[in-house]
Amino acid sequence: MMNFNILLFDGFETLDALGPAEIVGHLSDTYALSYAAPGGGIVRSAQGVGVETRPMDEIAPGGVLLVPGGIGTRTLVKDAEFLRALKALAESAAYVLTVCTGSGLLAATGFLDGKRATTNKKAFFWPASVGPNVRWVRRARWVADGSVYTSSGVSAGMDMTLGFLRDLHGEELARRCAAGIEYVWNDDPENDPFAI
Amino acid sequence: MMNFNILLFDGFETLDALGPAEIVGHLSDTYALSYAAPGGGIVRSAQGVGVETRPMDEIAPGGVLLVPGGIGTRTLVKDAEFLRALKALAESAAYVLTVCTGSGLLAATGFLDGKRATTNKKAFFWPASVGPNVRWVRRARWVADGSVYTSSGVSAGMDMTLGFLRDLHGEELARRCAAGIEYVWNDDPENDPFAI
Repeated sequence: MMNFNILLFDGFETLDALGPAEIVGHLSDTYALSYAAPGGGIVRSAQGVGVETRPMDEIAPGGVLLVPGGIGTRTLVKDAEFLRALKALAESAAYVLTVCTGSGLLAATGFLDGKRATTNKKAFFWPASVGPNVRWVRRARWVADGSVYTSSGVSAGMDMTLGFLRDLHGEELARRCAAGIEYVWNDDPENDPFAI
Repeated sequence: MMNFNILLFDGFETLDALGPAEIVGHLSDTYALSYAAPGGGIVRSAQGVGVETRPMDEIAPGGVLLVPGGIGTRTLVKDAEFLRALKALAESAAYVLTVCTGSGLLAATGFLDGKRATTNKKAFFWPASVGPNVRWVRRARWVADGSVYTSSGVSAGMDMTLGFLRDLHGEELARRCAAGIEYVWNDDPENDPFAI
């Protein structure tokens, strides 16, 4: 079993976090899903979904860390204590996945310096400004650089999650996951219909 | 403003409910989203997401009612008190939307009798057995029968929600909603890649 830790915060984008949760949640023999946040308790998504979490400092080393985007990133990116904690979590994880502007938050910690990464195409300028040393990819549904996966906006997180599962467990498992939820998988990381 | 009430219950399928919430949540000038459940409090999705809700008997008449599917439907379909309350809610709503096996739950109340409806393609037999008087459509991404919209499995709920918004507010708004979350909208209700 591998832990799959989804980091939440007030103002997270609902689907960034819970689209991947939908997919990984069907692999409960392989992944133990959990939801954590700064301080724990109920956090509220940008779409008003109140989600129960445990404190992020309870996340054990290893496993997968997924960081969503959302309007809440704009506040957290100025929170030095949170950024230190996030960097430590990313460094201790086996795999790090970000969705949408989650890559901006992670970039602000320095963790993405020198790595290839992508983000939401409509808000591209923001991650680029907080992470000037990241090798930002303008045209990508998602980017994998070693054990670090970053996706484009919101819905792209589901495509990336299936791509991550393909890389670790093979094409057949990824296709089965997509079909199980009747999802039309945009399976080519380089096909980015929303690039500008 | 129109209320958009998402009905949750233990064992609801995460994306069935929260995929549509992601889309509608961006129209906060038009729709007031809220999350309700039998008895209220925290309910837990099939993927372990604990979501805060208010009691379903606080839902006001009118507005939109969305009923997700998920493994929890198998228990609720035997709960006569819940089925009576669900039927009353559906009858008092301006629009009723179901995702995946949510249509099975609604069918068990009798509300769908004589209406055209669809459901998850892998679990098709189940709604058909609990709703023998429904005009089930085997090949459809989603079906609209008047003010009642039913979708195929899980991810199809997002396509249906965009279709519902197109019907009410026009093509341009629906396209803008999809592009805003970088979602590749499967926009043809009759194109069902998962029909069996």
